[in-house]
Amino acid sequence: MAICEIISVGTEILLGDIVNTDAQFLSVELAKMGISVLHQTTVGDNPERLRKVLGIASERSDIIIASGGLGPTPDDLTKEICCEFFNKECVLHQDSLNSMESYFKGKGLVMSENNKKQALLPADGVVFPNDNGTAPGCAIEKDGKHILMLPGPPRELKPMFLNYAVPYLSRFSDKVIVSHNIRTFGIGESVMAQKVDDLLNSANPSVAPYAKEGEALLRVTAMADNKQEADKIAQPVIDEITSRLGEFIYGIDEPNIETAVVKKLKEKGLTLATAESCTGGLIGKRITDVSGSSSVYGCGIISYSNETKINVLGVDENDLKIHGAVSEPVAGQMALGALKVSGADIAVSVTGIAGPESDGTDKPVGLSFISLAAKDGTVVVKKLLTGKNGPGCRDYNRLVNASNALNLVRLYLDNNLQ
Amino acid sequence: MAICEIISVGTEILLGDIVNTDAQFLSVELAKMGISVLHQTTVGDNPERLRKVLGIASERSDIIIASGGLGPTPDDLTKEICCEFFNKECVLHQDSLNSMESYFKGKGLVMSENNKKQALLPADGVVFPNDNGTAPGCAIEKDGKHILMLPGPPRELKPMFLNYAVPYLSRFSDKVIVSHNIRTFGIGESVMAQKVDDLLNSANPSVAPYAKEGEALLRVTAMADNKQEADKIAQPVIDEITSRLGEFIYGIDEPNIETAVVKKLKEKGLTLATAESCTGGLIGKRITDVSGSSSVYGCGIISYSNETKINVLGVDENDLKIHGAVSEPVAGQMALGALKVSGADIAVSVTGIAGPESDGTDKPVGLSFISLAAKDGTVVVKKLLTGKNGPGCRDYNRLVNASNALNLVRLYLDNNLQ
Repeated sequence: MAICEIISVGTEILLGDIVNTDAQFLSVELAKMGISVLHQTTVGDNPERLRKVLGIASERSDIIIASGGLGPTPDDLTKEICCEFFNKECVLHQDSLNSMESYFKGKGLVMSENNKKQALLPADGVVFPNDNGTAPGCAIEKDGKHILMLPGPPRELKPMFLNYAVPYLSRFSDKVIVSHNIRTFGIGESVMAQKVDDLLNSANPSVAPYAKEGEALLRVTAMADNKQEADKIAQPVIDEITSRLGEFIYGIDEPNIETAVVKKLKEKGLTLATAESCTGGLIGKRITDVSGSSSVYGCGIISYSNETKINVLGVDENDLKIHGAVSEPVAGQMALGALKVSGADIAVSVTGIAGPESDGTDKPVGLSFISLAAKDGTVVVKKLLTGKNGPGCRDYNRLVNASNALNLVRLYLDNNLQ
Repeated sequence: MAICEIISVGTEILLGDIVNTDAQFLSVELAKMGISVLHQTTVGDNPERLRKVLGIASERSDIIIASGGLGPTPDDLTKEICCEFFNKECVLHQDSLNSMESYFKGKGLVMSENNKKQALLPADGVVFPNDNGTAPGCAIEKDGKHILMLPGPPRELKPMFLNYAVPYLSRFSDKVIVSHNIRTFGIGESVMAQKVDDLLNSANPSVAPYAKEGEALLRVTAMADNKQEADKIAQPVIDEITSRLGEFIYGIDEPNIETAVVKKLKEKGLTLATAESCTGGLIGKRITDVSGSSSVYGCGIISYSNETKINVLGVDENDLKIHGAVSEPVAGQMALGALKVSGADIAVSVTGIAGPESDGTDKPVGLSFISLAAKDGTVVVKKLLTGKNGPGCRDYNRLVNASNALNLVRLYLDNNLQ
């Protein structure tokens, strides 16, 4: 099994300005290929320390993947140091220069002189085009050791790795690892884990529980000589988990609940509208994150103020006075209002107190009402109390409110709304 | 200045199952204390590799902070290996055993035999109590080198570090580092860097350029004996940069452009409304991310479909037919419609093709029109072409569109709209 080390280059990581998500992404993808990551190292934009770190890595690893430090500024030195380390000369790579020039042209900008150094690439290396930025990546090899260089920004690194580095690395991949994520909503991690307790100790496939922001998932991972074989090992365990967790599962290998909702809406030929108070557009944003959502989602009202609730959604002014904006009747009227304004088949609404400040009443931060109304006459309102307040609660409460609204739509579409 | 290395121990990090947020947290806190983190290393739960990594770290650092691997299971070996490395004997620490027993009792559980090894601690070390879990941390010292061991779970590591490790490390904290971020919008990283080229080589304060998703920032970092002194060193350079970059700067030490916009709206006592097509609620979401935004933002319309543009915002049906949804007149009418529906002082709109699919016309993915209308009669429409298409373009285009819309509001509020 080939041994790989990930070297993240960037003083901003050492200062804690950014979380090193590149290392995580690369680790996941390399594991899928059966390439073993035994070390991750982060070093600053410092030539001497980078040289030493390369020396250590090349002793203990077959493959080094360096990310970051390919930019146009003088402190971007990864390529220069790596090439020097492997005794490779850098020359002008005309294709890269051309595509950089057209990149800037496409933006109506003139390329600066600084950027040209990004087109200097190792003479006998492999170039990885950058489809999402200016800095090309590359790979060099010496005495059976390989260094791959990738840009730091995740939106450049990820597609470059998948499209160009994976084919380059395929020579090292013998075993195949296949993972399937069974995603649930509405069940806590520990309850979920208890229901599948006896499966958590199996080795191949392995079953591991994960939780984040109100969701819980089980990852089933199988290793075999090829993908079909691995899938065959995983499938019986996936079937068993599916039968035990039932309606809590919103999808297998779905990236998130909004994608599951958009898919189900398409399948049923139904449209959705949103009326958002405390989530302020987050539900709409998450639905429209999904490419192709325009066929099922056409209208959202962000009714952050009472005036918008009254004037655009037709919420009763008296109910607002008597029950307050964060209340069952207001949530229901918001959903019904969105249904009417939009002409959609289903509308979902959220009104709540995201915090950290209260809304001036004695209602607690973390309280919300989520409602679904549909053309078939369905109107339900659910009360949610996240229990989160204090620092960081705002993002959490908004996210969990939006997820619960999406889950309400999912349950309605699955005929599981109680 | 004391040099520190963070060693994260855990196979789950190398597999990419979790993002290493501990390393980020520790880096931020150490930087605040003037302790320099020059390396972050991640290694699996493997005694031999951990020993080697400790060997390398102790050569190049004064302080090693190891996180993870203090749990009760047989593969949790951090403490054993670190103590062996420094020739320290572990003995039963009665206080820790007592507090572990009462931790389990408090949860109505019986402590397992496994947990007892967590109370074995170095005889002449300093023990860090764990107020949020079972594994105590500790620190050992030999020949002026220090190893601190902390549990991996962030909710245990963070309070332990702040409450017990910071006092331990205070002996190394003499200098104070102060950073200020000068945030710009509308200028590329390389053009920005060129304008301040001569400042990028200065040492104290240092000036470093960073770019992400359409934004560029300059970080000015100064080191001194105390905060006032450091600020005094940084200020003249900040002033110089401010005068060179002028209106491109949307704020100094602002976390993001939406926070700057909300602040400026509050200062001027003006309200904002939004009309979003391709961004689908993202602008509203970003504004309402800011706590307290309800005083300046009350209404947003997500007009993803033509019907919503016509029925809710009053966009002319003929203009939609003739020019298409992604066009200058439609953007302008969306902003004017939002102004009318909301009663706000300013409205901003976006209509564009986020991709990856085109909208069925010959307009390119990445094209958008962004408009601002205000009660004072202002109506402007800006055309934007991000040049991004293909994988990953959707998120990028939506983010950059939303940022440009927010920037348009910012420029209007600064009286810099051209």
